[in-house]
Amino acid sequence: MNVELISAGRELLLGNIVNTNAAYVAEHCALLGMPLGWQTVVDYRPECIREALKLALDRSDIIFLVGGMGPNQNDCTKETAAEVLGLSLVEDVAVKKQIEKVLKGLGRGNQPESIWKQAMVPEGAVVIENQNGTAPGLIIEYQKKTLILLPGQPSELQAMISGKVMDYLNKHQPETVYVGMVKACGLSEGEVQEKVRDLTDPRRNPVCSVFLKKSRVHIRVTGKAASKKEAKSLVKETIGILQERLGNHIYSLDEKITLEASILEMLKVRNLTLTTAESLTGGLLAARITSVPGASEVFKQGFVTYCNRAKRKLLDVKKSTLKDYGAVSERTAKEMAKNGAFATGADVCVSLTGLAGPDADEGKPVGLVYIACCYQNKTTVREFQFSGDRERIRENAAICAMTLLRECILASEE
Amino acid sequence: MNVELISAGRELLLGNIVNTNAAYVAEHCALLGMPLGWQTVVDYRPECIREALKLALDRSDIIFLVGGMGPNQNDCTKETAAEVLGLSLVEDVAVKKQIEKVLKGLGRGNQPESIWKQAMVPEGAVVIENQNGTAPGLIIEYQKKTLILLPGQPSELQAMISGKVMDYLNKHQPETVYVGMVKACGLSEGEVQEKVRDLTDPRRNPVCSVFLKKSRVHIRVTGKAASKKEAKSLVKETIGILQERLGNHIYSLDEKITLEASILEMLKVRNLTLTTAESLTGGLLAARITSVPGASEVFKQGFVTYCNRAKRKLLDVKKSTLKDYGAVSERTAKEMAKNGAFATGADVCVSLTGLAGPDADEGKPVGLVYIACCYQNKTTVREFQFSGDRERIRENAAICAMTLLRECILASEE
Repeated sequence: MNVELISAGRELLLGNIVNTNAAYVAEHCALLGMPLGWQTVVDYRPECIREALKLALDRSDIIFLVGGMGPNQNDCTKETAAEVLGLSLVEDVAVKKQIEKVLKGLGRGNQPESIWKQAMVPEGAVVIENQNGTAPGLIIEYQKKTLILLPGQPSELQAMISGKVMDYLNKHQPETVYVGMVKACGLSEGEVQEKVRDLTDPRRNPVCSVFLKKSRVHIRVTGKAASKKEAKSLVKETIGILQERLGNHIYSLDEKITLEASILEMLKVRNLTLTTAESLTGGLLAARITSVPGASEVFKQGFVTYCNRAKRKLLDVKKSTLKDYGAVSERTAKEMAKNGAFATGADVCVSLTGLAGPDADEGKPVGLVYIACCYQNKTTVREFQFSGDRERIRENAAICAMTLLRECILASEE
Repeated sequence: MNVELISAGRELLLGNIVNTNAAYVAEHCALLGMPLGWQTVVDYRPECIREALKLALDRSDIIFLVGGMGPNQNDCTKETAAEVLGLSLVEDVAVKKQIEKVLKGLGRGNQPESIWKQAMVPEGAVVIENQNGTAPGLIIEYQKKTLILLPGQPSELQAMISGKVMDYLNKHQPETVYVGMVKACGLSEGEVQEKVRDLTDPRRNPVCSVFLKKSRVHIRVTGKAASKKEAKSLVKETIGILQERLGNHIYSLDEKITLEASILEMLKVRNLTLTTAESLTGGLLAARITSVPGASEVFKQGFVTYCNRAKRKLLDVKKSTLKDYGAVSERTAKEMAKNGAFATGADVCVSLTGLAGPDADEGKPVGLVYIACCYQNKTTVREFQFSGDRERIRENAAICAMTLLRECILASEE
């Protein structure tokens, strides 16, 4: 089964935007065990789309055609595809109603007449409703080939792919695919490899794919079986093995839940409040935590104590500590966390101090970071030596701070 | 002149990574006035590269071939290209020495024997030295066509493109291209269009391309002339026009300088210190400011006052203000900025309060944000109504806070 993707759009050819749609389509096809064989980007002019589509029809069974589905005059992907396949366009009443509904919701009365051309669909095409815009997606079956037309707007495309398109492709597979996700933190790359290696054998069913993120790991578990129920049960079994091996390092089994969201949830169910005391990360940890809707239930305030004076004044770090051990030290991190919790009355306080670079300081190397967590009157400190540039060091530090926080709370419950 | 790009790599086809290389190559070709006509991604197997390359040789004059240039057995891009062109591979002594040097720098003694295959180059090829790795870039001229082979590692590719490859392509242009950049903030999309429209006519030389970023605008000025000197002088002239029209809204003429870096520089030369008082952005503004190396000279500390109690305790916002006007109000923003400056002794304090959503509150709409800046005992407040999701609202707010800060300092000097 050959699958390919054609993206139509001038902005991609000019490098104004990065082709994240291609990665999204590719990832979902790979999930179904039908990876893309080609990706092509062409201009949105009819002759370019025509050439690419003809080539694709020669060599592939399933063809994704993305972009150029909008109301503008330049948007001619659908028209060109219909022409190549010899299909005529007919008005789809349901699509027209959906466009009317979306326009009403946007409160936009005056739209160009051309918006209605989006209600025209090739005869026999299956329409995929667009819940985020006006251009519908289309699935066209033609002489044993399948053409899938999707709008180029990422949120619209993603909703269609993860919904109707996956369902459609799954139905046309000899086996049904079910995908699970395991997200873990606080493990080194080596530890992950050691614990998971046997599950990543491509001949295994389900198979695990390991994605190393900054100081975290995502493991995708893909199972295949005759029915969805059976595939799901296989995946569950493998997730069970991963849970046994990775234990508390797992913070979520949900693709959509971030580490920060899982931590907020963890604190919320325990009715705990959190504060942060940041030096090298300069607010990054607080910003990540408050990026989650509803963070205010748990997170009330945070300190960015970049200079020594602020560490002393806001967090009551001892002058002698800063003088004898330096700002980048276990002691300073400890006092920041302990005093941060005390000053605010928060149940948990996480602190970070370190050197993000580019220059070394206090005779200490760039990337040296101390993170402390104060919880239930006990302060745990950990030393890290990160590599990479300033941005990477700061991001890894923020993630390791969340990981330490999780550990401290879980350890207290053992 | 037809130009195209072929990327060879399985990870792109599986959607494990996003093709940022394609955007980088595309952008630089567009800069030279020779935009890409096609982008293709194929698997790294020889038969896939061969097919794509043959097609490209049929229709294009300049072909970029990226990826599969490494020391692994799978890496066969160079070998396949040489075979298609009928060229034999010969060892390049300079490349071999460079590989030895890089390996020594990395302190890696034991390398697989296959690493030396990277020193083999097609006869007659121009070698582009790889300063960040071991795989050289190659420029091959073949029957009036040019083939440019580059490693897929982004930092290695980027260094080659922005250096030797741009020089080479520029030399083979009938005219030399020179590119300038103008970065501005504090203008609406409409204002930008109005002030710049006549300069964006594609027939104009130099021509301006407008890129709207979050609450900012980048304008690229591309000039063409017989010599670099002449092109540069044309670009300078157009930048002069932009400076006249956009005035103080321009924060940098340097591609690499971010808004946060320009603001830190602005404060540094005036010997001013800065503090931040953030509610809805939850540390995002402080994090952006401290992302710039050397921020500690200007930025000493910041407050994240997410809840009302923290606003009262840390920033001394009046209870009656919060009660009568709400946390999301002009008054609260004003008190946060004023008291933040007072509490820390900083010369400037910027504050933000607003609703990032997803839920409305205090009977106020999501996206409503008040930003205040206190400088020289004068506090300026501004109201914003942002659209988009939580992330976008927070990011736009952080950028508009920096813009307001610039304005206040510049206004004080008028």
